[in-house]
Amino acid sequence: MIVADFAMVPMGAGTSAARYIRAVYDVLRESGVNYVPGPMSTSVETRTMEELFDLIEKANIRVAKMGVQRIITSIKIDYRLDKEISIDSKMNA
Amino acid sequence: MIVADFAMVPMGAGTSAARYIRAVYDVLRESGVNYVPGPMSTSVETRTMEELFDLIEKANIRVAKMGVQRIITSIKIDYRLDKEISIDSKMNA
Amino acid sequence: MIVADFAMVPMGAGTSAARYIRAVYDVLRESGVNYVPGPMSTSVETRTMEELFDLIEKANIRVAKMGVQRIITSIKIDYRLDKEISIDSKMNA
Amino acid sequence: MIVADFAMVPMGAGTSAARYIRAVYDVLRESGVNYVPGPMSTSVETRTMEELFDLIEKANIRVAKMGVQRIITSIKIDYRLDKEISIDSKMNA
Repeated sequence: MIVADFAMVPMGAGTSAARYIRAVYDVLRESGVNYVPGPMSTSVETRTMEELFDLIEKANIRVAKMGVQRIITSIKIDYRLDKEISIDSKMNA
Repeated sequence: MIVADFAMVPMGAGTSAARYIRAVYDVLRESGVNYVPGPMSTSVETRTMEELFDLIEKANIRVAKMGVQRIITSIKIDYRLDKEISIDSKMNA
Repeated sequence: MIVADFAMVPMGAGTSAARYIRAVYDVLRESGVNYVPGPMSTSVETRTMEELFDLIEKANIRVAKMGVQRIITSIKIDYRLDKEISIDSKMNA
Repeated sequence: MIVADFAMVPMGAGTSAARYIRAVYDVLRESGVNYVPGPMSTSVETRTMEELFDLIEKANIRVAKMGVQRIITSIKIDYRLDKEISIDSKMNA
């Protein structure tokens, strides 16, 4: 599994991001991936990098369709080959 | 309140960071701040930026004392003037 | 254009990342994208998000093939719809 | 030396950040530190973490005084104990 977290900051769309974050959660829910919301970012667990990137792109498109003209997305990916990881295994460690 | 999240990646200290992350939690616990562990980073809530930066520096020094020779720290700070925020208010929104 | 920067931190592979960073530059050069090395990260300019993500994945695979067992990749993407951007336009602004 | 890069994203202040970035460069110039502008972030070199954090805080206050009500700041710090580093040494490696 790939574990990653990401956050999207809309620019030019007011100081509140709550409704855009809810739209991103919709994308994650529709995809069926395991995810954990946090105060500053959202953690997701995907089988492959392609699956992660597909989600990030869908989330950007969804927020852009809501009228946001500029989005800064930060992503951090944990790509680990020496052992199997998941959101749960990382939280327990 | 300042809400921030941060993650520290030790280099040259093996592929597992669990014991260093536990040391960082010790620093947070000793400081008395409100914090929330996540799979990829830790969120903290501080009264001021100085308090946040003091924690980050203490955490780096603690991990360096464990023998880590290079640490990459990522921090994301939400500095908001239009309304009072906290970890809880952000999770509820 | 999508403008992004990214940085990869190898874990369990010593404190020096220089040879891995050179391998990442090789991936970028082979792809033909416009990129700018920086002291902490590398900026790239791609036509699409897919192209960006394809590079990031190729760079991870390349470094993993060098024997690195865990890689933390940070990416920041500027997705802008209100005007055309490039590395040059951002540096000039 | 501490080498770090940071980026500030103003929310609720339009899609262009150019004038805020120029204000941040003013803060850096006034401080006398060595810094390198990049397309997505700015790299700085400071003697201590305190000096770095003091700059970040000053930059936030400067941008807030321009009327920005919410600022998301990302920072990445390279804290290295096994050898002396600088922006130049990192660019050459």
